[in-house]
Amino acid sequence: MTLARPNIARIEGYVPGEQPQEAGWVKLNTNENPYPCSPRVVEAIERAARGRMNIYPDPVSTSFRRAVGELFDIDPDWVLPANGSDENLTILLRTFVDPGELVAYPYPSYILYETLADLQGGAHERLLLNADWSWDLEKVRERTDRNVCPTKLLFVPNPNSPSGNRWDDETICSLIPPQGLLVLDEAYGDFADEPHRMELLKGEYGSRIIVTRTLSKSYSLAGLRLGFAIAHPEHIEQMRKVKDSYNCDTLSLAAGTAAIQDQQWMLDNTAKIRATRSRLTAQLRELGFEVVDSQANFVWSTHTEHEHRTLYEQLKTRKVLVRFMQFPESKVDGLRITVGTDAEIDTLLDALQDIV
Amino acid sequence: MTLARPNIARIEGYVPGEQPQEAGWVKLNTNENPYPCSPRVVEAIERAARGRMNIYPDPVSTSFRRAVGELFDIDPDWVLPANGSDENLTILLRTFVDPGELVAYPYPSYILYETLADLQGGAHERLLLNADWSWDLEKVRERTDRNVCPTKLLFVPNPNSPSGNRWDDETICSLIPPQGLLVLDEAYGDFADEPHRMELLKGEYGSRIIVTRTLSKSYSLAGLRLGFAIAHPEHIEQMRKVKDSYNCDTLSLAAGTAAIQDQQWMLDNTAKIRATRSRLTAQLRELGFEVVDSQANFVWSTHTEHEHRTLYEQLKTRKVLVRFMQFPESKVDGLRITVGTDAEIDTLLDALQDIV
Repeated sequence: MTLARPNIARIEGYVPGEQPQEAGWVKLNTNENPYPCSPRVVEAIERAARGRMNIYPDPVSTSFRRAVGELFDIDPDWVLPANGSDENLTILLRTFVDPGELVAYPYPSYILYETLADLQGGAHERLLLNADWSWDLEKVRERTDRNVCPTKLLFVPNPNSPSGNRWDDETICSLIPPQGLLVLDEAYGDFADEPHRMELLKGEYGSRIIVTRTLSKSYSLAGLRLGFAIAHPEHIEQMRKVKDSYNCDTLSLAAGTAAIQDQQWMLDNTAKIRATRSRLTAQLRELGFEVVDSQANFVWSTHTEHEHRTLYEQLKTRKVLVRFMQFPESKVDGLRITVGTDAEIDTLLDALQDIV
Repeated sequence: MTLARPNIARIEGYVPGEQPQEAGWVKLNTNENPYPCSPRVVEAIERAARGRMNIYPDPVSTSFRRAVGELFDIDPDWVLPANGSDENLTILLRTFVDPGELVAYPYPSYILYETLADLQGGAHERLLLNADWSWDLEKVRERTDRNVCPTKLLFVPNPNSPSGNRWDDETICSLIPPQGLLVLDEAYGDFADEPHRMELLKGEYGSRIIVTRTLSKSYSLAGLRLGFAIAHPEHIEQMRKVKDSYNCDTLSLAAGTAAIQDQQWMLDNTAKIRATRSRLTAQLRELGFEVVDSQANFVWSTHTEHEHRTLYEQLKTRKVLVRFMQFPESKVDGLRITVGTDAEIDTLLDALQDIV
């Protein structure tokens, strides 16, 4: 019999998307950026590697927080860097959610929120989205406002995954749980046509919202594991107690600072991805797919005449990996397709043309 | 009023040793290795940085686990890499300790165990060591064996910090809590004259012990944040559910694999440190200090005629940083001095000669 906590022993654990370690795949399944990171990032890593790797990193990530502060015109005390955005999500649970307290999130969305709530021993609730990916605000309020077990954290990925749609600021503010905090997960924020620049944090509800960001997607640095939270310092102060002292390493802090300071590189790549996204959306529709208008670096596609799992498998035999996802409670399934390079998307579309 | 959990709001958080970011310090306060990491590590980082940083790392760290497995002649399924040894300590708490369950550790030792127990909402108990740093085994058994709230995890750093002494295998085995696990924190294991090579895990009590190791100290990679746990796969399997999917990044996995594969570099540096440790110990004793025989890369020194805090401060004005530590419950305080290069130790000894 295992000595693990019962809520650990009984769960499966989160299963990330397939990560084939060999080359040769057209990999459109985990929303990575197909373009390389900035050469300035590579230089920064090389410089740091030749530096003092034998010494601990700056435990409060001063340079990186300053770079993020300058980018969004906020005080660095509002910034908490972490070992990937995932670590900040974990830190949020461990900071704010006691056993039995409620964590809510839209459904379908990022299923990791549920795993993290389980790990922490929190209760969790799926807030079912409408079929057009909008919120049923009345129903949400019924559930988040109640007095017994009110929502402590409401996670809202915006743009949402797997759908790629983006909710407006008014909707976001109306979702803030009266006795808790709203976590605005902006992992895909930079791919929106008009990215959020922390306006919500500077507004009326600024102390009720925690924004999380990652360098994995828009900055082409999924391999680096660096993300950051932005929130009122009263929240950051509590979260900092929970993080490991040296949660970010010397190389990632140097690389991340260089990446943030090379905005043009990121903007050029996200612009390319937005252009390819438009073309992909149009061509999938021509092939008979229904495609949600996306503000992210992926599109959600469904087809009325084909089984999505079969499509996924047929693509896989052609070494094209997309993500087959199913959300039984909403009776939704489909393919989430990352926007790759134009050449990768051509390979995908050629394959789909054969198949459908 | 903060929305943080009460057990977060009321604690201060762990305070790591001072990390001055500017050069010019003789830094003997956080047990870093004064020698640079292997050049093969630097090459591995540079190669990885020029590779596919836009892609997620291998979520199960295959190459690194294989390298560790070869080193200790164990199956890679026994290995769990983490973002520094600290992350594995956190993962252990989150995997095995439910709110109110008991975490025990020797005192004086690494005070982080207590912070981690607080963060998790576990109960904690300090097992007071004898004045000569040995265990009062009878007293320990009274407290770990009891039926109401038995010890779930017993953390034993070996060599111990701040003392630097090392307990023998028989003592370690006799400490295993009857209803829990013993975590053998071997952060300083490679500095022992005869390092442990996982013999305990291969023996009779192998499934009751979890070993944690780090590359921060012996491999001169504190800046990298990479550590690993070694334990029976039944424990590793549960711990893996708790870790973030991509807890180790591409650069640290490449670097760590290269470091493990360049044993000679590590062995040469630890040999140099052991030689300097002998000299430092002898010369501190000549200056009137009592020094514990150390099997780590630091020594614990006390002086009957001087206030330790004052000594620490006087050294600091000379830009020599050591660690002043106090353990009120044991009425113990003193200086923990990292074994630096010979030149650094000469600077320290010259300064002390002036002072005492």
